[in-house]
Amino acid sequence: MPTPHEYAHEHAERFRQELHDLLRIPSISTDPAYRSEVRRCADWLAAHLRGLGMTAETIPTNRHPLVYAEWMGAGADAKTVLTYGHYDVQPADVDEGWHSDPFEPEERDGNIYARGAEDNKGQLWLQIKAVESLFHGDQPPACNLKFIIEGEEESGGESIAKYVAENPEKLKADVCLISDTGILAFDKPSIIYALRGMVATELTVTGPDHDLHSGSFGGVVHNPLQVVAEIVSKLHNADGSVAVPGFYDDVVMMSDAERAELAKTSWTEAEVATETGVPQTWGEVGFSPRERAGGRPTLEINGIGGGYAGIGFKTVIPSSALVKISCRLVANQDPDRIYDLLKAYVAQITPPTVTVEWKKFGGGHGALVDIHAPEMQAAVRAYENVWGVKPVFLREGGSIPVVADLQRHVGMPVLLIGFGLPTDNIHGPNEHFNIELFHRGVDTILHFYEIYAG
Amino acid sequence: MPTPHEYAHEHAERFRQELHDLLRIPSISTDPAYRSEVRRCADWLAAHLRGLGMTAETIPTNRHPLVYAEWMGAGADAKTVLTYGHYDVQPADVDEGWHSDPFEPEERDGNIYARGAEDNKGQLWLQIKAVESLFHGDQPPACNLKFIIEGEEESGGESIAKYVAENPEKLKADVCLISDTGILAFDKPSIIYALRGMVATELTVTGPDHDLHSGSFGGVVHNPLQVVAEIVSKLHNADGSVAVPGFYDDVVMMSDAERAELAKTSWTEAEVATETGVPQTWGEVGFSPRERAGGRPTLEINGIGGGYAGIGFKTVIPSSALVKISCRLVANQDPDRIYDLLKAYVAQITPPTVTVEWKKFGGGHGALVDIHAPEMQAAVRAYENVWGVKPVFLREGGSIPVVADLQRHVGMPVLLIGFGLPTDNIHGPNEHFNIELFHRGVDTILHFYEIYAG
Repeated sequence: MPTPHEYAHEHAERFRQELHDLLRIPSISTDPAYRSEVRRCADWLAAHLRGLGMTAETIPTNRHPLVYAEWMGAGADAKTVLTYGHYDVQPADVDEGWHSDPFEPEERDGNIYARGAEDNKGQLWLQIKAVESLFHGDQPPACNLKFIIEGEEESGGESIAKYVAENPEKLKADVCLISDTGILAFDKPSIIYALRGMVATELTVTGPDHDLHSGSFGGVVHNPLQVVAEIVSKLHNADGSVAVPGFYDDVVMMSDAERAELAKTSWTEAEVATETGVPQTWGEVGFSPRERAGGRPTLEINGIGGGYAGIGFKTVIPSSALVKISCRLVANQDPDRIYDLLKAYVAQITPPTVTVEWKKFGGGHGALVDIHAPEMQAAVRAYENVWGVKPVFLREGGSIPVVADLQRHVGMPVLLIGFGLPTDNIHGPNEHFNIELFHRGVDTILHFYEIYAG
Repeated sequence: MPTPHEYAHEHAERFRQELHDLLRIPSISTDPAYRSEVRRCADWLAAHLRGLGMTAETIPTNRHPLVYAEWMGAGADAKTVLTYGHYDVQPADVDEGWHSDPFEPEERDGNIYARGAEDNKGQLWLQIKAVESLFHGDQPPACNLKFIIEGEEESGGESIAKYVAENPEKLKADVCLISDTGILAFDKPSIIYALRGMVATELTVTGPDHDLHSGSFGGVVHNPLQVVAEIVSKLHNADGSVAVPGFYDDVVMMSDAERAELAKTSWTEAEVATETGVPQTWGEVGFSPRERAGGRPTLEINGIGGGYAGIGFKTVIPSSALVKISCRLVANQDPDRIYDLLKAYVAQITPPTVTVEWKKFGGGHGALVDIHAPEMQAAVRAYENVWGVKPVFLREGGSIPVVADLQRHVGMPVLLIGFGLPTDNIHGPNEHFNIELFHRGVDTILHFYEIYAG
C-alpha cells in the first residue's frame, strides 16, 4: 500500500481533471439566474464525497444548499477535524477581459485559469483530495473527518451563519481547517491569523419618478447621480479615514509588537503601486499598506449605476441611481452596528430632494486566531515540512465571516491553511491557481493530519 | 381641386400610417450597431421626398448621411423656405419601462407611442406632409421649398455643423422652419425664442490596471468610483450653481422685462415637483424653474458606470470608472471654451492616485431668435388661426445646435414651430406624440406658408 503522500502523487493528474469538472459548473450564488447551477454543484460535491466513503448530504436552506459529510471511523477517542469550504463563485463575464472562458478551465503557464480556480473550488478540492489520500493510504485515517461546505460565501453567507449558530453539536470538532487564504509568495509560506469582517449594502437614490430629458429638466430637479456622488464623497475624510461617526469606536488597535512583526514582511507603497498599476497608492494616513489592508477597517464603493453609461451619449436625468458599498471590519466591530451607523450618517447627509432605499447583503464579524495554540503550531510544521522554511504570520484584508461564527458557536480553533498567491486575481478576470501550489497544498494538509494526530 | 387644408384632412389616416413606417426604422445614431438602420432611414426619406416631386439626395458625411431635397418651381422672385429636421433617435430599450415595443408604433389614448414619435420623426413628418399638401392643392406652391435633414442630432451633430458652415449657398433661404420643440400645453400654444447650447463629454478615471478584490486592496489604493464621486461632488456649489471657474463669464443675463414675461407662464416649484415626481425641486438659487431651465446654463451628470451594479453584490475595486457629463449653455457661451474650462478644473481637483481620459461628444451654441421679425409674426398668426389664441413666447432648456449654425452661417431667421407637449417623455420610455397635435401641426404649417407668401 502506498502512503497517503504517494497516493496523492500517483493520482495528481486525475485530481486536477476532477477539479476541472467542478470548475465547469457556474455556481454564481449572487445571481438568481444561476440558482439551478448552484444546486447542481452541491449535488455533485455530495455525490463525490459519498464516493470517497463518507456519509454526505445536501442541507436545504432559505437560499443555496449546504453540503455536509462525515466519517467517524477513527472512533470516539480520536480527534475530529472539520474542514470548511465554499463551492459558490463570484460572477464572471468574458467581456471583463478573460483570455479564456471563465467556466471552461484551461491549464497554461503552470496555472489553472477559471472562475473559482483558486477561490474557493481549487483550495476546497485540495482538502478533499488530501482526505481521499488518507482513505487510500497504508493506514486508515487517524482522525474523524467532517466537511461543511457552503454555497453563499460570495453573496452574504446568511445560511451558513444560521446553520452554525443552530447546529454546534453536529459541527463539533477539535479543530477546523479552512483553505481560503493565500501565502505571501510562491517560496514564502505564511499563515493568516486575522481576518476582516464585512457588511455589504446597496443604496438606491430616487428623484423623479421617471427618466427626464436633461435639457428640459436639468437645473430644476436634483440629479440622482449627482446626489449619489455627493453622498459618496462625504464617506471619507481627507486623511483617508472613514467619515461615518462612530465607525472606529470598537476597533482594537494593533499592538506595537504586532506592528513590528507585520513590518518584517515587506509590502511597501512602491510594491503596492507596481502590483496594482496605480500611479500612486492611497489610504488612511499613519498606517502602512499591510496595516491598512489587514488591521484597519475600510469602506469601499463596489459599484455605481445610473443614467446611460454605454457607448455614445444620452442626455438623460435618471429617475434613480444606485451605489453598492461594503465595509471591511476588524475583530470586535459589529457588522449590524456599522450598518446602522452608516444608515444614520447617510440619512443625515441626504438632501430632501430625493428618497433613499437600503438593501443589506449580510456580513460577518472579523476574527483573530491564537498563534500560540498547539493546533496552529502543527500547521506551522506542516508548511515547514513542504517548503523547508517556517511560515510567517499575517493579517488578511479579506473576509471569511464563518471563521468568527465557528469560533464563537462551535468553540474550537480555526486554522487558515491557504495556498493562493496575491497575483491569482480572484474576483477579477483571469482568476487562476498555481498547479504546483495545488499539489503542495495536498501535501501540506496530509502533513498536518499526521502531525496533529501525533 | 381641394385646398391644401382639405387635402391634408382627407389623407390624415395615410399620413400617420406612413409615419408608423418611418418609426419602425431604429435609426439610433449614437450606437454603432445601428449604423445600417440609420442609413436605411436616410434612403427611405430621400425616396419619399422624390415621390412628392422634389429632387432629393443623401449626402455622405464622416458618420451618418444628410438628406437634402428641393423644389424651386416657384421661380427666382418667390421666397424660399428651408425646413430642417432630424431622422435619428435616442436609444430605447424595452426594459426601461416601455409598455409597447419602442420600434413598433402603437396608437392608444389619442397618442402615437414609439421612440421618435415626437422627437423628431413625428414633427418632421408633419412638415413633410404639409409640403405634400401644398403640392396637391388647388394652386402650385407659392414658395420655393428646401429640406435639410440630419442623422446625428441625438449624438453630437458634427456632420450638419460642418455641412452648414461649408455650404451656406446651397441652404440659402429666406426663412428656416424647425419643428423640434413643443407648446406649453394642449390648449396653450407657445413659441420658443431661445435655445440652450450644449457640450457633452465622457471622463474615464483609471486607478489600478486590473480589477482588484476589495478585501485585499481596499484601503491601499484609491477606488476609481470614489474618485469619480469626489470629482462630481465638486462640480456644483452648495447654492446649486456650477463650480467650474469661468463657467458664467460669457452668460448674458436675462433682462428684467424678459424675466417678467417668463413669469407670466406659470411653472412653479410645486408644478415641477408634481410633473416629475421629485420630493423637492432643486437648482440655482435666485432663479425660477423656467429661468433655470431656459435662461441659465447647467451641468448634468448623465451616467456613471463602474464596478458591479447588477443584481447581488461583488466585492470589487474596479480598474476604472466613467462619468458622462453634459453642460447646457445659453447664447454667447462657447462650447469649446466651456469644455476647456471643465477639463482644466477637473485636472486641478483630480488626485495623483488616478489618471483621467477625456472624450468629447460634440456640442453647439445656444441661440436667440428675434421675436419682432415679420417671419416670427407670421408664425404667431399661423398658431392663432388653428388654436384661436395667440401663442406665448418661451425659452427652451433643450439644445438644437443647428439653429445657431443656420443663423450664423446662412444668415436667415430660424423659426421654432413645434407641437410637442412637456409630457411626451422624449428620450425616456413610452415617448409619444399627441395625434390631434400632429394634425394641428400640419394645419399650422400650411397657414404659415399662406401668410408668409402673402
